[in-house]
Amino acid sequence: MMPSGGAAGRSEQLAELKAVQHGLLTAPEVEEWLDQASSQDDLSGEQQANLNEMKRTWIHATALSENLVIALSKSEAACENVWRTARENADFALVHPKLEELLIVVKEVAAAKAERLGLSLYDALLDQYEPDMRSEEIDKEFSSLEEFLPDFLQRVLAHQAQQESIAQPQGPFPIEKQKSLGIHFMKALGFDFDHGRLDVSLHPFSGGTSEDLRITTRYDENDFTTSLMGVLHETGHALYDKGLPTDWRMQPAGEARGMGMHESQSLLIEMQICRSRDFIKFATPFIAEAFNGEGLAWQTDNLYRLYTCVKPDFIRVDADEVTYPAHVILRYRLEKAMIEGNLDTKDLPEAWNESLAKLLGITPPSDRDGCLQDIHWYDGAWGYFPTYTLGAMMAAQIFQAAKNADSSIIPGIQNGDFRPLMEWLRQNIHSKGSLHSTKEILIQATGKPLDAEIFKNHLENRYLQ
Amino acid sequence: MMPSGGAAGRSEQLAELKAVQHGLLTAPEVEEWLDQASSQDDLSGEQQANLNEMKRTWIHATALSENLVIALSKSEAACENVWRTARENADFALVHPKLEELLIVVKEVAAAKAERLGLSLYDALLDQYEPDMRSEEIDKEFSSLEEFLPDFLQRVLAHQAQQESIAQPQGPFPIEKQKSLGIHFMKALGFDFDHGRLDVSLHPFSGGTSEDLRITTRYDENDFTTSLMGVLHETGHALYDKGLPTDWRMQPAGEARGMGMHESQSLLIEMQICRSRDFIKFATPFIAEAFNGEGLAWQTDNLYRLYTCVKPDFIRVDADEVTYPAHVILRYRLEKAMIEGNLDTKDLPEAWNESLAKLLGITPPSDRDGCLQDIHWYDGAWGYFPTYTLGAMMAAQIFQAAKNADSSIIPGIQNGDFRPLMEWLRQNIHSKGSLHSTKEILIQATGKPLDAEIFKNHLENRYLQ
Repeated sequence: MMPSGGAAGRSEQLAELKAVQHGLLTAPEVEEWLDQASSQDDLSGEQQANLNEMKRTWIHATALSENLVIALSKSEAACENVWRTARENADFALVHPKLEELLIVVKEVAAAKAERLGLSLYDALLDQYEPDMRSEEIDKEFSSLEEFLPDFLQRVLAHQAQQESIAQPQGPFPIEKQKSLGIHFMKALGFDFDHGRLDVSLHPFSGGTSEDLRITTRYDENDFTTSLMGVLHETGHALYDKGLPTDWRMQPAGEARGMGMHESQSLLIEMQICRSRDFIKFATPFIAEAFNGEGLAWQTDNLYRLYTCVKPDFIRVDADEVTYPAHVILRYRLEKAMIEGNLDTKDLPEAWNESLAKLLGITPPSDRDGCLQDIHWYDGAWGYFPTYTLGAMMAAQIFQAAKNADSSIIPGIQNGDFRPLMEWLRQNIHSKGSLHSTKEILIQATGKPLDAEIFKNHLENRYLQ
Repeated sequence: MMPSGGAAGRSEQLAELKAVQHGLLTAPEVEEWLDQASSQDDLSGEQQANLNEMKRTWIHATALSENLVIALSKSEAACENVWRTARENADFALVHPKLEELLIVVKEVAAAKAERLGLSLYDALLDQYEPDMRSEEIDKEFSSLEEFLPDFLQRVLAHQAQQESIAQPQGPFPIEKQKSLGIHFMKALGFDFDHGRLDVSLHPFSGGTSEDLRITTRYDENDFTTSLMGVLHETGHALYDKGLPTDWRMQPAGEARGMGMHESQSLLIEMQICRSRDFIKFATPFIAEAFNGEGLAWQTDNLYRLYTCVKPDFIRVDADEVTYPAHVILRYRLEKAMIEGNLDTKDLPEAWNESLAKLLGITPPSDRDGCLQDIHWYDGAWGYFPTYTLGAMMAAQIFQAAKNADSSIIPGIQNGDFRPLMEWLRQNIHSKGSLHSTKEILIQATGKPLDAEIFKNHLENRYLQ
C-alpha cells in the first residue's frame, strides 16, 4: 500500500523500532533475570521450555550490537527498494551493488551469531527461522530429494501425457464471486471472521495475532484457481496461529515453532487437503455454482487434474507440488555458497540458470524470471528458503499420522466437515506452540523424526495413479 | 479494518507501546540531557525552540507514572469498544459505567499534569492538544460567538428562505467517478501521490508522515457532495504535514503546531477555499463532467448554494459552517463541567439535549444522534473539542491575511491554480512547524492574535449576501 516516496521514511521507522526492541531485549537487567530464573529448581516443564526460548531469543539479540541491527535494517530496506525496480526491468546489474553491500552485513550478522551459538555461518542464519535445524540434516534430506525428483518428474510428465487433456474453465471469473467462494471454504475450515479478515495485496500473506488474523490474496479475473488455493494456503497459516496455546499467549513458548512448522500447516491445508481428490469432490458443486460453470471443465475429475497438474516453470510461487522442491534446493545451495564465500554475487545469474537447467531442464528468458524473482535475499532473509520444503515434508508426515490416528478425518473432508482434522491438529501441533522443539513435536505427533520417504510416497500416490 | 474480536489484543498492544514510549521519554538520563542542553548559551533560536518543545513533551510525560499511562490506555480502549455497541443501540446506559471509569482515570491524568504545569484540571488536558491555550481565552471567544450565532442563524435561515430552492443533483454517483474527481482536485491543490494515498474508511482521517501521507474518505452513491468536500478537508491536513520544516524532521520543532492550527489548515482548504464561489465556479465543469450532469442542478449558482446551505441538525460532523461552532461550544461546556465535577456523567444525555435546544432549537430523536455521536470522550480525548472552532476562526484570519498579502491568490483559485496560495501557506504557516507558538505564528502571519471578528465577518459576507 505504501507509495514509493514513503520508502526512505519507512526504512528509518523500521530501523528505529528494531533498535528499540533490541535495546529492550539486551538491557543489562535481562541477563540478571535470566540467571535468576535459571537458578530456580521448581520450574515446571513448560516454564523451563519458556525460559529456554527466552534465552534463545536473548542470545540471538545480544550477539548483535545496536549499530549492526540498524545497519542491517537499513541495508535491507535500501536493497529491497532497488530490487523492485531491478526486477521490473530484469536488470540484475542495477541491484547488484546493494545486494553485495547487504550480503556483507548479513555475513557480519552470521559471524556474530555463529560465534555465540557455536555454529557455522549458514547454520547461525538458519537457526533464526528454523531453531535447532542444521544444514547437515538439510543436505541429507535435500540430496535424497534431488536424487529422486528428476526421474520422478519425467515419470509424472509421461503419466500426464497419457491422460486426456485438461479442459480450462472459461472466465471471466468476477472478483466478488472468487472472494465469496474463498470465504465459504475459509469458514468451512474453521476461520473465524470475528477474529480475522481477508483482504487484497500484491503478495499474498498471513499475519497478525491469534485474535486478529489477517490474510490476503490477489485476484485474477481470468483465473480463479490460483487465488482460491492461495487463500486456502494462507488459511492454513492462520489456523495454526489461532490454535497456539492461549495459556502461553505473548510468551515465547506460546509462539509458532518455526517457519518450517508454519509452512507445514499451510501446505497441509493446501497440498494435502485442498488439492486432494476428496476435497475437490466436495468443493466441485460450490465452485461450479459460484461461476455458473457447466460441462466437462467443471467436473471433479477435470478440476482435480487442473489442481494437480505438473509443469516445470521458472517461478517458485507458481510451482506445482512436484517441481517446488527443485526451486528450493536451488536457492538453498546458492545462498549457502554465497554466505560461505564460494559464490560471488556477481555470478549469481549464471549460477542460477545453470542450476535450474540441471534441476528442471529449463532456462528463464531473463533474470526477472530467474534470480530476481524472490524478495528474500534482497530483503535480508538468508537461511529462510529451506523451510518451504521442510514444511512440505512435515505436512505429508503429519497428515499421514492424522489419518492413521482418526478414521473420521477422511470422511469428514469428503463431506466438508473439517472438525476431526482440525481437532487433531489443534491437539497435536497447534497447541504445542514452542513448548517443545520441532523434532519433539514431530516425534510426539507422528512417532518418528522427519522422514522424507513419506513425502515421496505421497507424491507417488498422487501423481502416478 | 479490525475485526471485532481483535479489540482486546489491540488494546494490550497499544498500552504496551505507550508504556515503552513513556519509558523511553522518562528515563533518568533524559532529564540530564535536558539540563545539559539548557545550560548551553550558544543555542540558535530554532534550537532553543526545539529544546522548549522537548521539555514540554517531557513534562507532560513525566507527570504520569507508567501505571497511569497503561491504565489510561486500557480504560480508553475498553470504553471505546463498548461505546461502539452503545451508539449503535442508542443505549447510553450501556456505556455509562465505562465512561465513568474512564473519566476517573482522565481526571487523575489531569490532576497529575495540572500540578506539574501549574494549570487547572481542564487546561492541563487542553494543553495536550493546543499548547499554551487556556480556557479563559476560549471562554471569551466562545461567549462572543455564542452571543452572535443564534440571531445570525435566524437571519441566515430567513435569507436562504427568500432564495429559490436548491436543485438536488440526481444520482447514483458511481464511486469510481467520485474517487477520480476527488483525486483530480487533490492533485490540483498539490497533493503528491508519490508520497501519499487516498483510501476508504468508515471515518475519514488524515495521517502518516510528510513522506507518506494517508487520507481516507467514505463514499455514498446517492450523494457525492459530502465525500468530495471531506476529501478536500483531509487534503488540507495532509498539505500542512507535507509542508512542515524538513530541517527539523523527526524533531519536536518540526512537528505540527497543535490541533487548532491543524484544523485551521483543513478548514482553510475546505471552508475558505473549496466552498467559496470562486472555487465552485472553477470546479463546476469538472463536477458536471464526472457525473454527466446537465441542467440547473449542475450550474455554479446551484452548486454554490448546495455547498453553503445552512440547516440546524444533530450531527456535528455533518454540520454546516454556521451551526458547527454551536456543536463545539456545547461539547466544550459539558466536558469542562464533567472534568471540574460540575456535571455527573449520568446526567450527560439530559444536559446535552438541553444545551442543543438552547443553541440550535432542536432535540435529537435519541442519544445516538446526541451524546453518543462522537468518539472523543469515549476514547479519552477530553480537552480536544475546542480546537475545531479555534481552527475555524484561525482559518478565516489566515486566509484573509493571505489574500491581502498576495493579490494573485484569488485569480489563482478562480483558474484552478493554487500555487500562489500554497506558497504563501508554506512560507507563513506550514514551514513554521513548532518553531514558534501558535500565537506567534498567527501574529507573524496575520499581524494580530486570534480575532473572532474576522470569522464573524466571513460568515456574514458568505451567508447574508
